[in-house]
Amino acid sequence: MELIDGNKIAADIIAELKTQVAALPGRPPCLALVRVGEDPASVSYVKKKEAASATIGITSRLIYPPVTITQDELFALIDGLNADPGVDGILVQSPLPKHINEVAVFRRIAAHKDVDGFHTMNLGKLAQEDDTGFVACTPAGIMELLQRSGVTLAGQHVVVLGRSLIVGKPAALLAVQRKTWANATVTICHSQTANLPALTRQADILIAAIGKAEFVTADMVKPGAVVIDVGVNRVADPSKKSGYRLTGDVHFPTVSPLCRKITPVPGGVGPMTVAMLMQNTVKARRQNG
Amino acid sequence: MELIDGNKIAADIIAELKTQVAALPGRPPCLALVRVGEDPASVSYVKKKEAASATIGITSRLIYPPVTITQDELFALIDGLNADPGVDGILVQSPLPKHINEVAVFRRIAAHKDVDGFHTMNLGKLAQEDDTGFVACTPAGIMELLQRSGVTLAGQHVVVLGRSLIVGKPAALLAVQRKTWANATVTICHSQTANLPALTRQADILIAAIGKAEFVTADMVKPGAVVIDVGVNRVADPSKKSGYRLTGDVHFPTVSPLCRKITPVPGGVGPMTVAMLMQNTVKARRQNG
Repeated sequence: MELIDGNKIAADIIAELKTQVAALPGRPPCLALVRVGEDPASVSYVKKKEAASATIGITSRLIYPPVTITQDELFALIDGLNADPGVDGILVQSPLPKHINEVAVFRRIAAHKDVDGFHTMNLGKLAQEDDTGFVACTPAGIMELLQRSGVTLAGQHVVVLGRSLIVGKPAALLAVQRKTWANATVTICHSQTANLPALTRQADILIAAIGKAEFVTADMVKPGAVVIDVGVNRVADPSKKSGYRLTGDVHFPTVSPLCRKITPVPGGVGPMTVAMLMQNTVKARRQNG
Repeated sequence: MELIDGNKIAADIIAELKTQVAALPGRPPCLALVRVGEDPASVSYVKKKEAASATIGITSRLIYPPVTITQDELFALIDGLNADPGVDGILVQSPLPKHINEVAVFRRIAAHKDVDGFHTMNLGKLAQEDDTGFVACTPAGIMELLQRSGVTLAGQHVVVLGRSLIVGKPAALLAVQRKTWANATVTICHSQTANLPALTRQADILIAAIGKAEFVTADMVKPGAVVIDVGVNRVADPSKKSGYRLTGDVHFPTVSPLCRKITPVPGGVGPMTVAMLMQNTVKARRQNG
């Protein structure tokens, strides 16, 4: 069994991007980071994104409207960033307060600045295999992890557990593309799937993104499979100071001995999402420049 | 074994649409049918669409530019229809002459008038399960055939053979939706899939859209499966006056005895595409009105 080291791979990508940005003509890429309110997880995520930007040489523009901002005010703010030629990418950190329609906000961002890849146009471009679009950071990160770990997808059976819009569906659409690095056979399973273990056991590559702590057990995994664990779940753990520990969607202790390769949680998919956001921002700078 | 009668189901839908259109306030729906040149198949398809429109009470606006039209001229024509408040739906019949970029033309049509469902925005909305979009007519027709034949998808394993943008991928995205009529487990197979028969044999519902005459043989189908045959292939047949016969992607003589239900070719999926185009046009009238 080999661990897929997401921290190492993300650091490699960030170093590559730094070199690329240094060689870009004109001004550096600029990423607008919009964080509504002071949600502690959001504060921490945006800080990470800001730090990665600084490392690479991406200018970040930090915009922290109060939690009381109205939807129309947020729209106006986004419209201003859309129209600003000095801004290449726009990220609105989720979750947003309940009085704001998150989907409407994500659609308000101009598709060509949507470095989070949540815009309808970008999802459509993914289905169309049109590389001018932006792919959502988590599924893009999964594909990078697989490629950089030497895992071939062509002709292999990729089973995606979970059909979310930001992980399961785009991961499936990526893996099935007519690209030399893709060309996988893909199955999408979910909470309504009958006889789930029999299906997941067919996976040469299993992507677990169902959001249930330690849901994937040894009986659900074929020996020699590659397992990508997208889950980040808190489970109570009195032995920890915080009272909980982080765990993935995979029961690591029993599944990992079976695997050819597996991602740990934390340190697997997680670090890749920031790296992919940075990659999308550099791409936006190139395409919009 | 029961035949799924696409002609009958399409006629039912057209009769329902006629009743709906009669009850619509204001002017009737209007569909612009753009046919470039005189390709015989295109002439025949557009005639069918015109006839169905007339039956339902949809006004059709026929625009037949010559095969020498430039891409810019075709864009200008589409721009005019996009801006015309009297036009609800726009269909540009494919194939287009080789000097015209088909994808660019389909994207030029305003998404809210794209009754063919080929626009990037509409594909994105399908992935997002946003029902304000238009679903491409063939996959939409497949789902209607299944629903109206009493085939339940929830928890069933749908195997889609073929990953095209106009059939395979949207059919998979439809079947996996979180809708009471959907909720299927979905596998997408294709030309690069290893051990294809073992996968297709798992299908409770097999959708064959690979474009190869009689490719699906009895050893590839589970007894009791429902088979939807999307293929329309010409095979040489000296016994026919035309010198050929039409056949699907399924070897009907050997596969059909195994099936719970199966669509014939012709008379299965084919008639549904025109019915779904009509349904999309009525929907466009409602949404744009």
